Amino acid sequence: MHERSGGFPGDRSRTPSTVAQLGEFGLIRELTSRLTSTPAVRIGPGDDAAVVTAPDRRVVATTDVLLEGRHFRRDWSTAYDVGRKAAAQNLADIAAMGAVPSALLLGLVVPPELAANWPTELMDGIHDEAQVASAAVVGGDVVGGDTITVAITALGDLRNRAPVTRGGARPGDTVAVTGWLGWSAAGQAILSRGFRSPRAFVEAHRRPEPPYHAGPAAAELGATAMIDVSDGLLADLGHIADASRVRIDVRSADLDVPAQMSDIGQAVGTDPLHWVLTGGEDHAIAATFPPAAKLPARWRKIGEVVAPTAPASPAAQPGTAQVTVDGAAWDKAAGWQHFGAGGSGG
Amino acid sequence: MHERSGGFPGDRSRTPSTVAQLGEFGLIRELTSRLTSTPAVRIGPGDDAAVVTAPDRRVVATTDVLLEGRHFRRDWSTAYDVGRKAAAQNLADIAAMGAVPSALLLGLVVPPELAANWPTELMDGIHDEAQVASAAVVGGDVVGGDTITVAITALGDLRNRAPVTRGGARPGDTVAVTGWLGWSAAGQAILSRGFRSPRAFVEAHRRPEPPYHAGPAAAELGATAMIDVSDGLLADLGHIADASRVRIDVRSADLDVPAQMSDIGQAVGTDPLHWVLTGGEDHAIAATFPPAAKLPARWRKIGEVVAPTAPASPAAQPGTAQVTVDGAAWDKAAGWQHFGAGGSGG
Repeated sequence: MHERSGGFPGDRSRTPSTVAQLGEFGLIRELTSRLTSTPAVRIGPGDDAAVVTAPDRRVVATTDVLLEGRHFRRDWSTAYDVGRKAAAQNLADIAAMGAVPSALLLGLVVPPELAANWPTELMDGIHDEAQVASAAVVGGDVVGGDTITVAITALGDLRNRAPVTRGGARPGDTVAVTGWLGWSAAGQAILSRGFRSPRAFVEAHRRPEPPYHAGPAAAELGATAMIDVSDGLLADLGHIADASRVRIDVRSADLDVPAQMSDIGQAVGTDPLHWVLTGGEDHAIAATFPPAAKLPARWRKIGEVVAPTAPASPAAQPGTAQVTVDGAAWDKAAGWQHFGAGGSGG
Repeated sequence: MHERSGGFPGDRSRTPSTVAQLGEFGLIRELTSRLTSTPAVRIGPGDDAAVVTAPDRRVVATTDVLLEGRHFRRDWSTAYDVGRKAAAQNLADIAAMGAVPSALLLGLVVPPELAANWPTELMDGIHDEAQVASAAVVGGDVVGGDTITVAITALGDLRNRAPVTRGGARPGDTVAVTGWLGWSAAGQAILSRGFRSPRAFVEAHRRPEPPYHAGPAAAELGATAMIDVSDGLLADLGHIADASRVRIDVRSADLDVPAQMSDIGQAVGTDPLHWVLTGGEDHAIAATFPPAAKLPARWRKIGEVVAPTAPASPAAQPGTAQVTVDGAAWDKAAGWQHFGAGGSGG
């Protein structure tokens, strides 16, 4: 954490209840006081930059931005849960390269009138999620602005293994997943209809539990391609298919659709398989393995890599042609179609 | 760069003039197409995470957030200049640890109605500034939102040297600076009065030129403490004084106040020394050196480290007591006093 021009107007109130009353230095003190260190941290918050070990002479790095109103809602999630989720989605990206997370940096925008305990509870959540993944928060920046914005960068350590990219899947490989699929989407459907239960799904939406250890374990066992499922299973398998120039066929009968999720689907009029296939934000990990590989514990085979049906075209909508369900295109609206690159393909 | 839920509503227009018309995938393609690589980049944009070399088994990392309206104005600066500046301030933090920058990650929030060439020109600026410092842009995240937000994380390589923190200054050390001081503040004063010249100062405000090479060079020559001057010279020397538990006395006669800056000061009614002492954003580097050290080229001695006058108190306003100018407190309003931790000290 370091101070910057453009901070908060401090005032002299003795009981800081807002970010402005706490002041920028006060807030930074509160945030950094919540942090703990790990052996990987050589220099933590408070200097121009942090120093983190990179034992195998490489560092894995990823960044994500979450905005209030778009990625989270304060009436649906506590600050603590937003912190857990923001950290989780970055840590999951590190795990999906086959790496072990080491450090997080936080860029935080908070409105001056925000309750002072919101950013501190956010930091508690970030810290606790980092601890689950054995990582530490090593630095950041806090500025005042209109929209709560949480920009997290995660660093990781490949432990001497090659990174597992999206580009290594080969025809014949097994497609497998580990973690939760569709739970966050089902939880969001519940919340968006004004309900708060079943709690397991609401909790899954508020606080994903990515299988961090599964990423390095899959790398160790020879995974040929791997991805964090953040956009939805079909969309993210589409990224593997695009990068590997293959097609992926998912067998719907092999997907786990819990009975309770089916009940929710019936209640809200949604096919629960749709949540499993297109819901993001659970941060499951999807990977491909050589056909002879013995799948690691808690991985579920869900399909197969096959040769592409047609030459991959850069103008095609990502994933549309190259991921099929039971041999056919999944024709229900999928999450990623909202963001199709409409005009740019010409 | 990787795609995320919560992107832009694409549309089918054939001449994308806004971010929404370009679409999220289209924008990411445009942004990544502008990037070049370096030998340090093992995996660049397009996967779950990037992989960057860390030759001495450590990585230096820092993050900063810039908001439109607070840190830049589109009527004062082009997107290209904002990109240069956003990259520069992060790269300068890396240099001020004595490290050589290696990589940048970009978290970008852009309104859907923003002209599509704004983010692409921003990326050109980030890329070009990274190149000045021999670094590469290796990844990022783009989301739609109300306020243009540029969150950059920089990584760096210490090249087997110890990091130079803020905490190593000792009484008797020489205080020195390199780079520009007060130029950005003078430029801002010009712009805020509706003028556009003298251009040299306006340009300094729009596009700082941090002395990246000076950081590692100072580390090599035994600098005991070092900091990027982002909050203003006095404020940032205050951070060194606090962390090192020393006092720093600046000799005003040793500061460079160019004649043209004095002319501007006279025109707008400001003591130009005030800009030099309190203006941030030029990203000069301030450092302390052992008394016998031969200062590196282009460093200017500006003062001395002395024993603290009173025990450093954590409740004191950062830097207030422990940095003096010609032996006395600098009593004009300094930039950092706007952000004093009003209530939190009790």
